[in-house]
Amino acid sequence: MKIVIAPDSFKGSLSAREAAAAIEQGILLAAPQAETVLIPMADGGEGTRDSLINTTRGATYAVEVRGPLGQELTAEYGVLGDGITCVIEMADASGLCLIPSKQRNPLLTTTYGTGQLIKHALDSGYREFILAIGGSATNDGGAGMLQALGLELLDEAGQPVGVGGQALSRIRQINGTRLDSRIQASRFTIASDVTNPFIGPRGASAVFGPQKGATPAMVAELDEALHHWADLMKQHTGIAVHHLPSAGAAGGLGGACLAFFPSTVRPGVEIVMEKTQLHAQLAGADLVITGEGRTDAQTASGKAPMGLAQAAQRLGIPVFVLAGSVGDGIEELYAHGITSIHSIMDGPMQLEDAMQRTAELLAHTAEQVLRTYLAGRHA
Amino acid sequence: MKIVIAPDSFKGSLSAREAAAAIEQGILLAAPQAETVLIPMADGGEGTRDSLINTTRGATYAVEVRGPLGQELTAEYGVLGDGITCVIEMADASGLCLIPSKQRNPLLTTTYGTGQLIKHALDSGYREFILAIGGSATNDGGAGMLQALGLELLDEAGQPVGVGGQALSRIRQINGTRLDSRIQASRFTIASDVTNPFIGPRGASAVFGPQKGATPAMVAELDEALHHWADLMKQHTGIAVHHLPSAGAAGGLGGACLAFFPSTVRPGVEIVMEKTQLHAQLAGADLVITGEGRTDAQTASGKAPMGLAQAAQRLGIPVFVLAGSVGDGIEELYAHGITSIHSIMDGPMQLEDAMQRTAELLAHTAEQVLRTYLAGRHA
Repeated sequence: MKIVIAPDSFKGSLSAREAAAAIEQGILLAAPQAETVLIPMADGGEGTRDSLINTTRGATYAVEVRGPLGQELTAEYGVLGDGITCVIEMADASGLCLIPSKQRNPLLTTTYGTGQLIKHALDSGYREFILAIGGSATNDGGAGMLQALGLELLDEAGQPVGVGGQALSRIRQINGTRLDSRIQASRFTIASDVTNPFIGPRGASAVFGPQKGATPAMVAELDEALHHWADLMKQHTGIAVHHLPSAGAAGGLGGACLAFFPSTVRPGVEIVMEKTQLHAQLAGADLVITGEGRTDAQTASGKAPMGLAQAAQRLGIPVFVLAGSVGDGIEELYAHGITSIHSIMDGPMQLEDAMQRTAELLAHTAEQVLRTYLAGRHA
Repeated sequence: MKIVIAPDSFKGSLSAREAAAAIEQGILLAAPQAETVLIPMADGGEGTRDSLINTTRGATYAVEVRGPLGQELTAEYGVLGDGITCVIEMADASGLCLIPSKQRNPLLTTTYGTGQLIKHALDSGYREFILAIGGSATNDGGAGMLQALGLELLDEAGQPVGVGGQALSRIRQINGTRLDSRIQASRFTIASDVTNPFIGPRGASAVFGPQKGATPAMVAELDEALHHWADLMKQHTGIAVHHLPSAGAAGGLGGACLAFFPSTVRPGVEIVMEKTQLHAQLAGADLVITGEGRTDAQTASGKAPMGLAQAAQRLGIPVFVLAGSVGDGIEELYAHGITSIHSIMDGPMQLEDAMQRTAELLAHTAEQVLRTYLAGRHA
């Protein structure tokens, strides 16, 4: 019996890799002879790099970069096992988790560090990029990233405007003569499930600004600044990102990529499935076990278990989901290839206890679910 | 597909009957064509009468009796669908749940009301009894029950000693001339999992006294009183219950039955299984779903799911347990025919929330478990 174990991370308690190991432990208690294939999953958000590097046996590089508030920090990026494809998680250099809650201020935060990671990879000879852009602390329309790559953003005195979302409104001129020319020889795949436009009521500032620390007044200011920046990008590149789907991802970094990079946007889970050769791994599998922190109607929108389930469904392979918590609307998921959904709780408990015991609970639940499945097989 | 649904009660939230209905609801979502057989289970404790009367389509009688502290109350007993067998739950007339915590005092509590239920059944012509003796508030060695049936317990002045555990030590003489003679023409099956002796460190007072409100000093006094009462019963009946297994059940009421009644003690779950014709119902079943409030190593000691599992195991039928909480040591249960054990929680939550949502959680978990089982069947 071949069992593919492909969970997402359990945020705050287990990485996808740790979750897969815990599930495997339970599976082998119920079926010691089973052949297990571990594929830590990700949906383009945090953990995407880890999942891809781990599954393809790739390598990781550390780079000194400027953090979202200008602080020096060491960020990593990876190269897949193919030796060709870089995977850069923007949250590693410009992520919300790099700033204490009280210091969050999207008027000031910059994607400069993400640009530095790209530059380092270009310097190392790489031209193929996966850019996972979830979890950003920024609302600078990707300007910082471009500045790190040589784009000059000048004010009316012809001086650099500095960095951050607020500085965008001071730009009067874009000078692209020093922009890294290797960008045009490269290919960028943007991993993002966000389809929001650059500006407006569904744009980056209005929808994602508040969780990055923006007050309503700041949201208005940021949206206006992004509007101005989009106008300038249009003048410079000919591409109008204002209302482009996914341009609003990562505080508008999505838009900068679409305007300045040879790039395509794809759902993160699709990229992860392709690069981990999930389809090949599914061949001949008897069942798939996946998992995530919470499963509910939201799971249908591009989350890791859903992509997996759709692929498995085409091959007629059942998919069991193990989740920290199970919410409403899961009936919808059955049609997409998810067979059943099991909470890993073993009794009433506090969230904190559950998060400390996630590995144990996952192993336990995987064992029971497999025992139940096997009873059916033996019927 | 035939599915036997046979849960115990979920104490404090659902009766066994309600639990069975909730599980059926989930099962029919996953398998609308399934043939379901509902058998509310019990292990001889609270709910035994309800389960037996319900499953056999029996009848219920209400009787005015004296409660454990002498208060008037209406208690019920049942007659099974066979029209012959009475089932009396001593907790209905003499149970701990009839007394507020602060008034619990096993020096005073009496089994008199239980005797009144038996007397009413005898008056109605019944001679076949199942006596479920879990959940007692008493430590009177069953003396009150015998008093209600006409046994006279007299002090040194030749006066009745009154009722309660403390009064036993004042008995100097037993007068059995007025004891209801129909008892000897009857047959009593005592449903009990308790194997403790009448007296001593493993006896009724020492082991069960504290949960009925006895202080250490009261335990010593009660154990001495039971010792004296056992000596007198031996003189009167020739039967020494002092160290007899199960004589310590229900505050020594087990001993009184063994000394004065034509009686046998059997595990409650065995009686329930026999009377509900569980074996016949299991014939041709594809699977069994049971449940209980908590499943752990204790489940192996005569609890409802275990009896059920052993019967199913002989027929090669898998048994899934749905539990409010799952504790340690469940691996032991596999050897006894339990296939898998699933907590019904759907995420971290408080006990109170779980108890309010038990029906919904049970239905949901039953659905998921059946979906998982069916995936195995279709493999």
